[in-house]
Amino acid sequence: MSEERHGTRRGDGPRKAQEIFDATLDLLAEKGYEGLTIEGVAQRSGVNKTTIYRWWPSKGALLGAALIGARQLDFTPPDTGSLTGDLEALLQTVTTLLTTQPACGIAVSVLGAVTQSPELALHIREFFADRIALEQAVFDRAVARGELAADADTMLLVDLLAGATWMRVVLRGLPLERDFVARAVGTVLDGARHQT
Amino acid sequence: MSEERHGTRRGDGPRKAQEIFDATLDLLAEKGYEGLTIEGVAQRSGVNKTTIYRWWPSKGALLGAALIGARQLDFTPPDTGSLTGDLEALLQTVTTLLTTQPACGIAVSVLGAVTQSPELALHIREFFADRIALEQAVFDRAVARGELAADADTMLLVDLLAGATWMRVVLRGLPLERDFVARAVGTVLDGARHQT
Repeated sequence: MSEERHGTRRGDGPRKAQEIFDATLDLLAEKGYEGLTIEGVAQRSGVNKTTIYRWWPSKGALLGAALIGARQLDFTPPDTGSLTGDLEALLQTVTTLLTTQPACGIAVSVLGAVTQSPELALHIREFFADRIALEQAVFDRAVARGELAADADTMLLVDLLAGATWMRVVLRGLPLERDFVARAVGTVLDGARHQT
Repeated sequence: MSEERHGTRRGDGPRKAQEIFDATLDLLAEKGYEGLTIEGVAQRSGVNKTTIYRWWPSKGALLGAALIGARQLDFTPPDTGSLTGDLEALLQTVTTLLTTQPACGIAVSVLGAVTQSPELALHIREFFADRIALEQAVFDRAVARGELAADADTMLLVDLLAGATWMRVVLRGLPLERDFVARAVGTVLDGARHQT
């Protein structure tokens, strides 16, 4: 086993890393960041807490690894054959995440905690960096198909779509209309300006 | 004086309502939602705390009124003569809010607190409802000028733009590029799809 610490899905980590990650996010959804403890994760996952500390020296580090490695936030970039289809599938993932338990409990708890903990904020940045690296496959295929300019600002497209969902659900506290995903993707790809 | 409670900028409230609102947001930015107390607001604004309780029976109610009434979040919808110019001005307001103290401290504290307090979440909804009612003037003028279809989903446009800023600054923790505002508005109005 490697000497490398901070195991992730990328390879190394303790034998029951998956159980540890899943238990971490379950406990976060149930108890919030304040109530999340390494002791609680050890108990839930049936692992000795010294094992957890050996790989992740703090609660923030463990949560950072769990956000990327846990099954609850598992993510495979869509490949529907069109940019519209892929962006609708991506956005559907975000809307499901933010409107279905336990994922929305996790998202809202993380959001609350990120405003309080600079260490956790760093791990959240890593989570989003990991996500956008995976999402890049969608944009590479769209460029290859001629649907998107090679110099398109792909992070902007993701942030417009995902951000609108966060705004609507978390900040406004409003439900998403049934056609929210299609309208949002249509606007970002084709624009809202009136064509006369 | 009206018997109505929960005074706001719309009219009624105690004589020093403006000082109370401003002090509320200052204290929120400095101490977070947990550290915000009606006693602290009374002290800072030079008002007896029973006066504050008479109008706003809880910290959440006071903060809800302060978000709408305080000078720090003062807002006048832009009127630049074009939809592009108005949306750029609107988005500039959001980016300044989220990247400049004390407003960004207020925004991040509110965001953290909204995940913990259902009462505060309700007041945040009122704040955003108030904002979009003010922003509607921008869209009404754009429809009159023929720049926007009369049935355009204006809340979606606001949420795409404002949400992208929240994503980039608060969740990703990344700086905004200098042309972020122009690119975001250009994408939402004209679309990102490659025109062949």
